[in-house]
Order: sequence, then C-alpha cells, then structure tokens
Amino acid sequence: MSFGLGLDAGGTFLKATAATGGGKVLAEASVPTRPERGARAFIAEAAALVKRLESGLGGRAPGLCVAIAGDVDPRAGRIRRSPNLLSFEGFPLRASLSRALGRRVALHNDANMAAWGAYAVELRRRVPDVLALTLGTGVGGGAVLGGRLVVGSTGTAAEFGHMRVVAGGYPCRCGARGCLEAHAGSYGLERTVRDLLAERPRARSRLRGAAFTPKDVSEAAERGDALAREAWRRVGKALGIGVVNLVYAFNPRAVVFCGGLSRAGRLYLGEVENAAGAESFRGPFGSLRLSVARRLDLGAVGAAVYALERDG
Amino acid sequence: MSFGLGLDAGGTFLKATAATGGGKVLAEASVPTRPERGARAFIAEAAALVKRLESGLGGRAPGLCVAIAGDVDPRAGRIRRSPNLLSFEGFPLRASLSRALGRRVALHNDANMAAWGAYAVELRRRVPDVLALTLGTGVGGGAVLGGRLVVGSTGTAAEFGHMRVVAGGYPCRCGARGCLEAHAGSYGLERTVRDLLAERPRARSRLRGAAFTPKDVSEAAERGDALAREAWRRVGKALGIGVVNLVYAFNPRAVVFCGGLSRAGRLYLGEVENAAGAESFRGPFGSLRLSVARRLDLGAVGAAVYALERDG
Repeated sequence: MSFGLGLDAGGTFLKATAATGGGKVLAEASVPTRPERGARAFIAEAAALVKRLESGLGGRAPGLCVAIAGDVDPRAGRIRRSPNLLSFEGFPLRASLSRALGRRVALHNDANMAAWGAYAVELRRRVPDVLALTLGTGVGGGAVLGGRLVVGSTGTAAEFGHMRVVAGGYPCRCGARGCLEAHAGSYGLERTVRDLLAERPRARSRLRGAAFTPKDVSEAAERGDALAREAWRRVGKALGIGVVNLVYAFNPRAVVFCGGLSRAGRLYLGEVENAAGAESFRGPFGSLRLSVARRLDLGAVGAAVYALERDG
Repeated sequence: MSFGLGLDAGGTFLKATAATGGGKVLAEASVPTRPERGARAFIAEAAALVKRLESGLGGRAPGLCVAIAGDVDPRAGRIRRSPNLLSFEGFPLRASLSRALGRRVALHNDANMAAWGAYAVELRRRVPDVLALTLGTGVGGGAVLGGRLVVGSTGTAAEFGHMRVVAGGYPCRCGARGCLEAHAGSYGLERTVRDLLAERPRARSRLRGAAFTPKDVSEAAERGDALAREAWRRVGKALGIGVVNLVYAFNPRAVVFCGGLSRAGRLYLGEVENAAGAESFRGPFGSLRLSVARRLDLGAVGAAVYALERDG
C-alpha cells in the first residue's frame, strides 16, 4: 500500500507516522530526541527510525515531510528558529535527511502541517479554503487556500498565535502583549484562571489553592466549576476576536481547532460562534464552519499526507 | 498595442481605463453613474463607454475587469453588497456585460484590484507575496500570494479594514468597534482629530473651530501643526497593529499603502515601521518592505491589467 511519511520532531520525541494519501495511519514509531547530540546524530537516528518503520510495513515512502514547531524556512530546508531544537538552527536538515534516505524531503512548520491535515484528511479535500488553529502550550496556525498550503515569503505565514487580540493584554513568550497565544494557549488559560481567582476572592472553585494544569481546568469546567467555565469563556472570547480577524483576512470556509487544548470545544466554541455571529458583514461569515478536529494527530498525519504532494 | 480594460464603478462615476500588461495607461474615460436608472441602463452605458474608448484607441481589449467597492461574488459575477450601488445587488452584472460586449468579463472588489496593481504594476511582478491597504473613506485590502490573487471562499478575502485593532475603539460603519477602518480611514482620522482637540483644549491648532477634511489634516501636519501630526501618528499606530497582524497572517514581502489618504506616508509610515521593528520574531519582519504606492490609480490600472489574466 502506498504511503507517505511524516516526521514530527519535537524537543523530547521524534515521531514517525506512515499514512496513506487519505490519512489512514499504517504505522507509527518514535524515539527520544537528543538535540544535545547535534544535528548529524539526529539525521542518523531519523533515518534509522524511518527504515525501521518501513521494514515493518514492507514498503517504501516516495517522500517524507518533517514538521517542526518553530520558524522554518521551507525553501532553504533549514530551521530558522526553534526553541526545542536550538542546536539545529541553520543546519541543512532537509538536504541532509534527503541524502541519508535517498528521496525527497520537505520541511514545514508543524501547525502548517496540521492545516494540511485539516484540509486533506479531516475535511477530505472538499473545502479548498481552510484555516487551522492549534491550541497547545502555544497557539499555532496554518492556512490552505484554493487547495494550496500558504507558506508566505519566508515560510512563516499563518503564525496566528502572535496576532494581537487584546490591546495591552497578557505578556506573550514572544515579548509582546495581547497575542492570541498569550490568551488562548495553555499559559493564557492558566493566567486567566489565576486572574479570575484573584478577581473573585470569594468564589468557590476546585482550582483555588492548588497547582493545576490546563486539563484540570477543562475537567473542572466540565464538572460545572463556574470559575473554570468563565476562564474558558474568556479564552473563547480571545479566540473569537482572532477568528473574526482571520475571516476578514482569509475568508476561509472552515476553521478547524486542533491540538491538545482544542478538545474542550464546548467550553469555548460558543464564544467563537457568538463573535462570528455578531458581525454585520455576512458575506464571509454566513457560510463559515467552525469545528474541533476529530483526531489529535493532524500535524503528523498532515505531514505524512503532504509528503505525497508533488510540490511537497 | 494590446491592452486590457478596467472599469471602476463607483457611486458617482464609472471610469474606464485601458492599460497595457505592464500598466501603461493608454486611455481613460468616464461617465456619471446613475444607479437609480437600474442595472440594465448601467450595462448599456458601460458598453457604450468601452466602445467609445476602444474606437479612440483603434483596438479591442480581449477582456475587461470591473472593480467595485463592496462585497463582490467574483465566481457568480454579482455584487453581493455595495452601499454605492444598492440597486445592482444580486444583478448578474458580469454575465450581462459579457453578453453586451461579447468578451470575457471579471468582477472583483476594488481593493483586490489595487493589490493586483501593486503586485503587477508597482512592483513589476518581482515580489510574489504582496498585500495592499487602500486608505480612503474606508480601508480596503487585497492580497496576492505566490503571484495569485487571494479571493477567498466567498470572494470576500482581504477585508483588512474590518480587522479589530483597538478593543472597544471607535465605532465603524460596519457596526463593530475598533476596526482598522474606524481608526485609519478618513472618518477615523477625523474622529482622532476631534478627540485630540477635546483632550487638549489649550493646544493651538489650525484645525480648531473649523470644518476640516482629511486633506486639511495632512496639510496642517505637513506645516508642523503638532495636533495634526499627533492625529496622524495615532492613525499610524492603528495601521501598525494592523500590519503586524497581517504579517503574522500572510508573511508578505511587501505591504503597499494606496488610495487618496495614503499619500501622507511620512506622517504615518514611521509608526508602522516602529510597530514592525518592535517584533522580536524577526523571520517574517526582517525582509518586509513597506511603501506608499507611487500612483493613485492602482485600482483602475490593476483591474485593466488583471483583465488580461487567463483566469481573470
């Protein structure tokens, strides 16, 4: 069976996914990433991982696509900046891996690959204009317009997490304030809960006086904790401003929320729908579909599917 | 000499522009628009205008492109909403004009055509990823990515004027608050001046106690009027937030300001450059070029040039 290979290279694990063009996962494998051993050791490990996966499948992928969290230069095939993979910055990752494996390799931002997964797998290529918002520690984005991945002039397009949604808002890891990520990423959610606990010193909440994770906030909200629900509503409001701006920018038919934090859809999606519904300019909003990705692995699967593209 | 035809249909004038593929204007002509006479009369007048222009040139354009201020459906070839041309909403403008003139007709938003003019004429197709911001009564936008016009799923892409840049900011014509247009269009500039006059009751300004136009504000600022200069700086700050968000969204190489209000470049461009320069994420900002269009007619010329595109 013909398949493509996606390599998801994070700071702790390197994960390989073999998937068909339709997004069916045939096999997965992973090894710990050891960036401190340097880029050449990484190439050797990645090549070994790929060969192991392929020998298990008894097939060979014509191409592979590496998805990286960070600022990637897809044309040069290098990582421009990736906090998780500092030692690889500037290294000719794509060319080295292509040489080691004897086939074409693409290198892209992981959220761009999630957008490709949303377009090609989640929505089965039926919707040509799709945006993805990946909600995790950070907030990433990707755009597919007319069935093509939007890469931008330096490969940095669709960094939606750094669009400003709240003037003078929460500080972002990037140094600015009020970025979408600072309000809707996991640290934005945590900050929102802490602010709410301080604003409402008498409000009961299972989140008070304890360390909590984003998952704890979601679970508390699901169980009816009013403060946790309000925190998610605030996240939803920030996402709503972001989505409204993105619809005016790209006029997509679909916006797909993905990533670990996106699962709590019913805690924030209503606010996003309210924001989109309040716009009097109906043209771009009338036919907009907002959804939460059904699967969590759209980035890895999107990369595997994208590896099969001719211009990948 | 081979040429394309752009028709700029506004509420008061219908203007036809014949231009070469390189953007050289060969001839122009205009007639008053009389929307109250209905769409069929408009078609007849537009066809007569085109024939008159062509007989003067002794040539025939293979296609034409109509640029309209408003929400246009380029696939259906109809105006969805245009405050200046209310009576044409829903009318099959493209098909009727194509029949009347016996050739292909495209119908697009005027700011999208300004973006095409910025890409194809101003920057001579040397920069594949270009955004245009048209500053006039309203603020419009257009995007060219990879040398292709971004139209979006309903033809409404790049409505940059309605991206929110100031939370709870000035009221916009669209009903929302804090839109880029409400802060950087002509009525945003006027409102900014009025607010400054009220905030600084003792500040001297030639704008105090008089009716003023956006042109008056620019002239006063050019002559050193501190309040007028501050008004333009505030407009520049709003544009700066908008441009930062647009760069994160599209990662363009160039952003071109066009339209009547854009001429005052040195009154606002510094603030936009400051905003872009303050971003710590250098990837998309390092190679960004901000400029003011050299010519005022990019929309009309862009439409004429776009009329020569195969998929126009």
